[in-house]
Amino acid sequence: MKRTVYFVSESTGITAETMGLSLLSQFDTVDFEQVYMPYINTEARARALCQRMNEAHARDDVRPIVFATMLDEEIAAILKQGDCFYLELFEHFVEPLSVELGVAPSRESGRSHAITKPSSYTKRIEAINFAMANDDGVRPDNFRHADVVLVGVSRSGKTPTCLYLAMHYGLRAANHPITEEDFERGDLPPEVIDARAHVYGLTIDAQRLQAIREERRRGSAYASAERCRRDIREAQTMFRRHNISVLNTSNQSIEEIAAQILRAMKSPNGGTH
Amino acid sequence: MKRTVYFVSESTGITAETMGLSLLSQFDTVDFEQVYMPYINTEARARALCQRMNEAHARDDVRPIVFATMLDEEIAAILKQGDCFYLELFEHFVEPLSVELGVAPSRESGRSHAITKPSSYTKRIEAINFAMANDDGVRPDNFRHADVVLVGVSRSGKTPTCLYLAMHYGLRAANHPITEEDFERGDLPPEVIDARAHVYGLTIDAQRLQAIREERRRGSAYASAERCRRDIREAQTMFRRHNISVLNTSNQSIEEIAAQILRAMKSPNGGTH
Repeated sequence: MKRTVYFVSESTGITAETMGLSLLSQFDTVDFEQVYMPYINTEARARALCQRMNEAHARDDVRPIVFATMLDEEIAAILKQGDCFYLELFEHFVEPLSVELGVAPSRESGRSHAITKPSSYTKRIEAINFAMANDDGVRPDNFRHADVVLVGVSRSGKTPTCLYLAMHYGLRAANHPITEEDFERGDLPPEVIDARAHVYGLTIDAQRLQAIREERRRGSAYASAERCRRDIREAQTMFRRHNISVLNTSNQSIEEIAAQILRAMKSPNGGTH
Repeated sequence: MKRTVYFVSESTGITAETMGLSLLSQFDTVDFEQVYMPYINTEARARALCQRMNEAHARDDVRPIVFATMLDEEIAAILKQGDCFYLELFEHFVEPLSVELGVAPSRESGRSHAITKPSSYTKRIEAINFAMANDDGVRPDNFRHADVVLVGVSRSGKTPTCLYLAMHYGLRAANHPITEEDFERGDLPPEVIDARAHVYGLTIDAQRLQAIREERRRGSAYASAERCRRDIREAQTMFRRHNISVLNTSNQSIEEIAAQILRAMKSPNGGTH
């Protein structure tokens, strides 16, 4: 059986979607059709969504599910009367928080993903520019200006993780790919070694690396099992030599790798374990 | 008065942080010290966090606030007994959802930001690679392979928005900066015009654009009020000529711009309003 799910909000809908997906992940045997509905900020849009919910009910033979973060009570009332299983994600928390803080809630929507603090927003944009300009080790002299430098063999997840760290946490994240030049030298470049206090090594299982490289260059020496094992082994030796914390990215998402790096950056010994 | 806030989870903590920040945004007169605590997945880590909470209470003279998405009841019990105002974000919703779906929850943590569907995860990674390779109009012949092409004058927010759309929605997002070459020609490049069904124009208020450009090249012709006004005016003329939907990014975050583009992509007439 398929269930249609709407993530609904008066503004970006990011909170409704993030929280809704987390809750749905507890029910992974169900087939969900996800519909993202940001900017339901007028009564007309709410009524149009109710119409879609009716159609979804007729199509699925079961009512749709709505995850909503609505602050305008009149718009919310229209949705609640719709033909759906409605979960309002804020309602259980705003009042207890208000009591705890001794402050009334503003009831203004769209504040959490808007630019409320220009300085921290500017920091994020600058971090994204930094990550773009310092991808793939193109300017190693910039590593000393970075908050974090990710180092690893080709295809170990460095670039997406750097972009994520920049975009979400405003971190100036650079990366260096360990390539033939490093293997020949038998060590990391001096700029990486000098920055080692904020360098993190990414490693990956040889079998997984081989599968990714085979996708890119089938049958090449670059994708051979022997070459993958060598690259990983020598990278590990370099990491150990300079006491660099290492994270295995094999079955991890960008979000998981980023969260572990943030945790490691804050831990007293800087370790990833 | 300052309140210390912890975002706590057994895995990445992204849901706890997103939802917690949304709730805190309702109380913008309070000064919050935010502490991100992912991977509290052992009783020892939970007890260490309780110790930190005690210290925060002593320092702030008021107990800290905890936003948690805990699925392991034993670890959660340790935190709940801590010296804090504890909000468990999942508890009001898992049970009603379970009843509605007729399925028991898995109680497994960390599923929502992990790689549960390799195909959609691969799509995101490929989209990030596409966005990186097609930034700044370097390969206009690729616009026809894009899901979305953002077009606008220099510094109107194209690059970060493309990266966000790729990273979070797996969209192949390219962008084209309107530059002197286009102004001289008096039109957009043919590759943009050919792709216009999925092209969105970004515009920006002249005053805001001038401020941003002044930051980059103070006193230059590029940053003059006259030049900024001309760039924006001529870009608007090009957008109108090809019936391209336009979004004003002046006071909008990456998340807001991305959400509006997603909404426009799904609306029957493709418009941004």
